[in-house]
Amino acid sequence: MDVKKAYVIFLGLGNVGRSLLRQILDTRDVLASRTGLRLIPIALADVSGLLLNPDGLPEETLRAALQATTDGNLLDALPGIRPLSEVGNALRAGAVLVDVTASPQTEPTLRAALDAGCSVVLANKIPLSGPWAEAREFFEHPHLRYEVTVGAGLPVIATLRYLLDTGDRVTAIEGCLSGTLGYLCAELERGVPYSVAVSQARSLGYTEPDPREDLSGRDVARKALILARTAGWPLEMADLSVEPLYPESLAGVSTEEFMAATPTLDEEYASRVAEAQAGGRTLRYVARVGPDGGEVGLVAVPQDSPLGALRGPANYIAFHTARYAEIPLVISGPGAGPEVTAAGVLGDVINLSATT
Amino acid sequence: MDVKKAYVIFLGLGNVGRSLLRQILDTRDVLASRTGLRLIPIALADVSGLLLNPDGLPEETLRAALQATTDGNLLDALPGIRPLSEVGNALRAGAVLVDVTASPQTEPTLRAALDAGCSVVLANKIPLSGPWAEAREFFEHPHLRYEVTVGAGLPVIATLRYLLDTGDRVTAIEGCLSGTLGYLCAELERGVPYSVAVSQARSLGYTEPDPREDLSGRDVARKALILARTAGWPLEMADLSVEPLYPESLAGVSTEEFMAATPTLDEEYASRVAEAQAGGRTLRYVARVGPDGGEVGLVAVPQDSPLGALRGPANYIAFHTARYAEIPLVISGPGAGPEVTAAGVLGDVINLSATT
Repeated sequence: MDVKKAYVIFLGLGNVGRSLLRQILDTRDVLASRTGLRLIPIALADVSGLLLNPDGLPEETLRAALQATTDGNLLDALPGIRPLSEVGNALRAGAVLVDVTASPQTEPTLRAALDAGCSVVLANKIPLSGPWAEAREFFEHPHLRYEVTVGAGLPVIATLRYLLDTGDRVTAIEGCLSGTLGYLCAELERGVPYSVAVSQARSLGYTEPDPREDLSGRDVARKALILARTAGWPLEMADLSVEPLYPESLAGVSTEEFMAATPTLDEEYASRVAEAQAGGRTLRYVARVGPDGGEVGLVAVPQDSPLGALRGPANYIAFHTARYAEIPLVISGPGAGPEVTAAGVLGDVINLSATT
Repeated sequence: MDVKKAYVIFLGLGNVGRSLLRQILDTRDVLASRTGLRLIPIALADVSGLLLNPDGLPEETLRAALQATTDGNLLDALPGIRPLSEVGNALRAGAVLVDVTASPQTEPTLRAALDAGCSVVLANKIPLSGPWAEAREFFEHPHLRYEVTVGAGLPVIATLRYLLDTGDRVTAIEGCLSGTLGYLCAELERGVPYSVAVSQARSLGYTEPDPREDLSGRDVARKALILARTAGWPLEMADLSVEPLYPESLAGVSTEEFMAATPTLDEEYASRVAEAQAGGRTLRYVARVGPDGGEVGLVAVPQDSPLGALRGPANYIAFHTARYAEIPLVISGPGAGPEVTAAGVLGDVINLSATT
């Protein structure tokens, strides 16, 4: 098989970006023999600066960048670093830009990349979950992919695209889209108080430093919105009703005040769990979207249902369609983690490189 | 977007072939706008003959063929029919040949198609489940796909390819691969005697006319072998141990004699079900393969496990890999039916046409 070169530009060298770079370096032979592709990193960018070589960054530079960022130093400790503003020089037709940040600042670069004829892969949900008028271009562009924004490496978006490409009609999508909240529900289910479960999840690094980022349901709502828009429903965030896992009164306080106040919520969540269990049910944080909107919140599901049987941090996405009407098509498994997320980004890069 | 033409050759016009032809006719606009492809059927072949027009068969001919075969008449009732032996004239570089038969006779045509530069899509498991020395070419050919041979329209093979392409290492694959045997297990579970469940499944058309075709586990074993070989394990059928759902003594008798003898098995299966239930378990017909071989047979699984929570006819495929080590990546849903199977074939056709 002939080997086709594909040039890759990294925006972001956090956990996912580094795992991706490592996977590209470590799976070169597999990739070439299975897909006929050779991926050549030409630019690495993070907030501190840019490494750029249009012919391909040498392997020792890439390894040094991995080492520098793993050690917590910044990319700008490396020789040859340029200002981030020069990232435009890396953009060229046929290259693939991967946005593995969680930043609201990358949108201009993404648009410039598409204009320059690059393909784009997003792990970043922000550009896809703003107002439809701004996000629409990204959803409709034939050379943009964003598999890992929902379910990390699980083939969720690919499956939805396949259903739509083959003429199926999606009627609803539902599931558990947060490993963090899955973990929390599992802990509540086995009798751990809310305050302890939240505090544990935070120390294990499952939540953001301010756990309300997760408990608010905002991240799940973004994923639900991305699913809806992919299904062809041009919804806005306001079309989703979202139940946060804390009261409005704790929305404005500091992180420390919030953590100190969590024991006051133990009784309420314990009684919701007990009520569910008395009816043979268990609590899951469920997202559901349809053509007209959706809901995100705690639902008491039967213990012997597929959602009830879900193991803690696993994600679960069910597609209800014209052809999958009685029993949905379901994808499930771990929906977080740098290795599986990087693999999902790599899958998008392969897919775009093979078809463009 | 420019529209790219792709010529399609049909081997087989049974339920799946007709559904596929109908989907191609009915989803032309969706397909063109979403994928930039226009699929043009140039040949329809079944045992009775061949319709061929290298520029594309006219829509009225295609509709007439659908009508003729739906009515149970043969394709040879139509004007313009040619001998099946002329199918070689349809083969040309860039066309996609779809084998939607279940026939052991198509292999020479498949090889001729690949030699002529066609892409090939198989719904037919036979060419993939013979001796490795013969099947190997099909697994290794870059322009051959066979998504629907396992789980019908569920994205099972695509997911396995994605895992391997991105450098993951698959350690085991397990699941329930037969809707028919899933139905049977569900019936047994709710106390229906074996003989009644088998007879019902047969009258509902869930089994072949001789239900032993399904009960033997042979079809599940073929699927397990296809999964294993896709994972990179060049196993033979003899590397799988297969438990049929009837005793050896009933293997050689006529279908009528077999059906008449099924009540003699009621007690055995009822007691296996009762034994499982006493331990909080339920019976599922499970396939499991790894690098060195596999097993296909009845397993008592916990009622509150994902396999235990599986609804009757649904399929379930779990990939255990280096990256999905603790919790597997799972695809589940209905794994049979002409519409979803045809959609899976269509997905393969789209995929091959987009990348070749």
